[in-house]
Amino acid sequence: MFLYGESREQMMHVAGLMPFTPAPGSSPDQLRELMSELRNRPAVQRPWNVKLRTPNLLWNPLQAWVEDPEVDLEYHIRRSALPAPGDERELGILVSRLHGHRLDLHRPPWEFHLIEGLERGRFAWYVKVHHALVDGYSAMQNMTSALSTDPESRDWPLFFAVPPPVRPARPEVPTEASEPGGSRGIHYHEMLAAVSAQYGASKAVTRALLRIVQSSRAGDHELVSPLEAPRCVLNARITKSRRFATQRLSLDRVRAIARAAGGTLNDVVLALSGASLRTYLLEQNALPDAPLVAMLPVAVRAKDEAGGGNAVGAILATLATDVADPGERLTRIVVSTTRAKQQLQGMSKAAILQYSALLTAPSMLQMIPGTAGRVRPTFNVVISNVPGPERPLYFRGARLEAWYPMSIPVHGQALNITCTSYAGSMCFGFTGCRDAVPHLQRLAVYCGEALADLERAVLHG
Amino acid sequence: MFLYGESREQMMHVAGLMPFTPAPGSSPDQLRELMSELRNRPAVQRPWNVKLRTPNLLWNPLQAWVEDPEVDLEYHIRRSALPAPGDERELGILVSRLHGHRLDLHRPPWEFHLIEGLERGRFAWYVKVHHALVDGYSAMQNMTSALSTDPESRDWPLFFAVPPPVRPARPEVPTEASEPGGSRGIHYHEMLAAVSAQYGASKAVTRALLRIVQSSRAGDHELVSPLEAPRCVLNARITKSRRFATQRLSLDRVRAIARAAGGTLNDVVLALSGASLRTYLLEQNALPDAPLVAMLPVAVRAKDEAGGGNAVGAILATLATDVADPGERLTRIVVSTTRAKQQLQGMSKAAILQYSALLTAPSMLQMIPGTAGRVRPTFNVVISNVPGPERPLYFRGARLEAWYPMSIPVHGQALNITCTSYAGSMCFGFTGCRDAVPHLQRLAVYCGEALADLERAVLHG
Repeated sequence: MFLYGESREQMMHVAGLMPFTPAPGSSPDQLRELMSELRNRPAVQRPWNVKLRTPNLLWNPLQAWVEDPEVDLEYHIRRSALPAPGDERELGILVSRLHGHRLDLHRPPWEFHLIEGLERGRFAWYVKVHHALVDGYSAMQNMTSALSTDPESRDWPLFFAVPPPVRPARPEVPTEASEPGGSRGIHYHEMLAAVSAQYGASKAVTRALLRIVQSSRAGDHELVSPLEAPRCVLNARITKSRRFATQRLSLDRVRAIARAAGGTLNDVVLALSGASLRTYLLEQNALPDAPLVAMLPVAVRAKDEAGGGNAVGAILATLATDVADPGERLTRIVVSTTRAKQQLQGMSKAAILQYSALLTAPSMLQMIPGTAGRVRPTFNVVISNVPGPERPLYFRGARLEAWYPMSIPVHGQALNITCTSYAGSMCFGFTGCRDAVPHLQRLAVYCGEALADLERAVLHG
Repeated sequence: MFLYGESREQMMHVAGLMPFTPAPGSSPDQLRELMSELRNRPAVQRPWNVKLRTPNLLWNPLQAWVEDPEVDLEYHIRRSALPAPGDERELGILVSRLHGHRLDLHRPPWEFHLIEGLERGRFAWYVKVHHALVDGYSAMQNMTSALSTDPESRDWPLFFAVPPPVRPARPEVPTEASEPGGSRGIHYHEMLAAVSAQYGASKAVTRALLRIVQSSRAGDHELVSPLEAPRCVLNARITKSRRFATQRLSLDRVRAIARAAGGTLNDVVLALSGASLRTYLLEQNALPDAPLVAMLPVAVRAKDEAGGGNAVGAILATLATDVADPGERLTRIVVSTTRAKQQLQGMSKAAILQYSALLTAPSMLQMIPGTAGRVRPTFNVVISNVPGPERPLYFRGARLEAWYPMSIPVHGQALNITCTSYAGSMCFGFTGCRDAVPHLQRLAVYCGEALADLERAVLHG
């Protein structure tokens, strides 16, 4: 599906922006020396060494991944530098630009950029991978295993030389109870891909969908239906250029709010996103009267699994952007996500997948050229919360500061908000279309302000 | 034609790489301050403010340039920086990468990159323009008028705010006699475009073509025919990635060789290119037995023009890559270009165009998907010599050091050599496909060595 969706404007790659603080006293030429290692032609491990069999005919039934015996590492691994002063703004501009270029599908579809010139001698990695090559979860696993938990390790291999992590067929999904996280990092797109072949609803699914439609008709807005999302500037057609902004918040602060409000980390992520979007849209005189609707992947306990297996489903939740009070907004969100998850509970894994697909199916239409941005949206924005590594990670002594996810805007969904937890932080990545989401940086600023507002309302209110 | 030729691999943009030395004592923030001027929304002059009417249907009979009332200057004008040490190699890598990205044809098709971080506090401009928007000559005129001849001028506007230079309908072309230069900077592609509508050969053209074919059959290799070019690795299909290398030579040194050998600057440019290609191909064990054939645009005096008007035609010339001796190679080249230009002399302007088109017509085939790199090439490499400004130019006190042209590799022509004269220098730009022309940097190195070899052979021999 990611290959089918690929077009000039819709580029189906995800990325991570990973800033590092070098070890004290490390060589300023550390990055240059990395490049010289490439000349020794180190072996390239899966998935970094595979390319498409028929790149000129993406939607080919015989499409497959084949090994590329000669990966041109100096093509894939690139040095870049920030212009002065090398601040967050310059970094955002550079990675926005990099994110707006299509991957070359005639080669293994990934790029690794070593960015130097950040303030105070820091550097960053920008790792870009086509979503058809790895899902978000695998990408994070791969990159985690490319880093060490030992700050003293100095001989860690470069990521492409690390053998793929061994994992069970499909790893167990953390439940809501085992937060931080919420979902196991599966992207909404993956879920749609998983079910696109098995349309057809079971009884449980039909009942759940009926419940939604009925509650909507009865004026019950706690259980959000696909019919409620207002028209919004965020649901426009997109161009090929991108904007990107980041925000890093303390995981402890987010967790304290969740605990006080009786909600989950996901709920607080939604509240922060909602607050940020409300301010942003108000400023543009573009806030819809009705509250914005977010789609988010969640992990729920499935009925049929022995031992309490879990499944990933999609739910729709309000962002309560019609509410001015931060505390009240969070309460509405908690009620909305609780109701939505109750819908999923008691279903089998297959039913959860089917239900989620049907719930969000109208949005698949948006990926078809010509329809997106012209039909009423099912939801206004996709918000994902991907749990990441809890311990600080290092690459040859340099400490990974943060891990910002960059995702995929598509026609009809010009903004994507994804956040990752890492070593005590919540790292937000706002990825948007340059033209449909002007001044996107402000969303990141408002998100930071929203945290303080929420604390005042919920903890000290 | 440039729009028709545009494809994933064949990107029809040209560019200039222009390194500057800042004025002594100038602010290190000079480039940042330029960007802040953009916020004042200065008026954007032609041609920088026009875009295609139907970018999704390039080959549309109703295609036209329309004014874009809101040019997003912060999209088009970009800051970049070189990673350490900021040497020629790093600069080459960065601009190769920039040259491998397609222009967005949904916007005015140009980009302007301000590159900082060059050694010794220097910076560079990389200016990229779609060939359908301006021809090579106009691009050079536009950029020349964006610079000042006065080193003291500090308030020169940015190039896009400079009104287009006033010029006659088609400017007079310098003759060979009025060198430096050779052609007036028209690119081979332009010439093909100009004649693609008026196929059909006059008597003079037919006679000239017959003469070529006859001389070829008679074993006369001084007059190079389109049937003589050997198969060569340079005539491969290309991918979308680029390599770029530069070489700057003293114009006086080149001129001294031309004078001693009784040839033109163009002839010495061919001899340098031939020497460089011979060494490069020998090293790869890929030098054809027969000498490589170059296509180059030249200016000749047309028969029908009162007052000695000139026309631009294409000629084929040997590069004498089968000859080891530099002096003998140059002699063969001088004979070959002289014979080729005699062919054109005495023809009318229209006939020169027609003749040139027919001579090079088989190469147009190469632009059609599927044929290039699979049929025998008409010539092996395009070499253009574009005369540039003779006096040093400045931008707000910063001195333009050199002016390197970047051109268009196409299927079947994986390498392009273009050089520009500027303020006492000959600036060579080698633009190639990353995959078909590996180690392209060596061509630039060998070109520099070839100058010393030629001096030894011709001046001191």
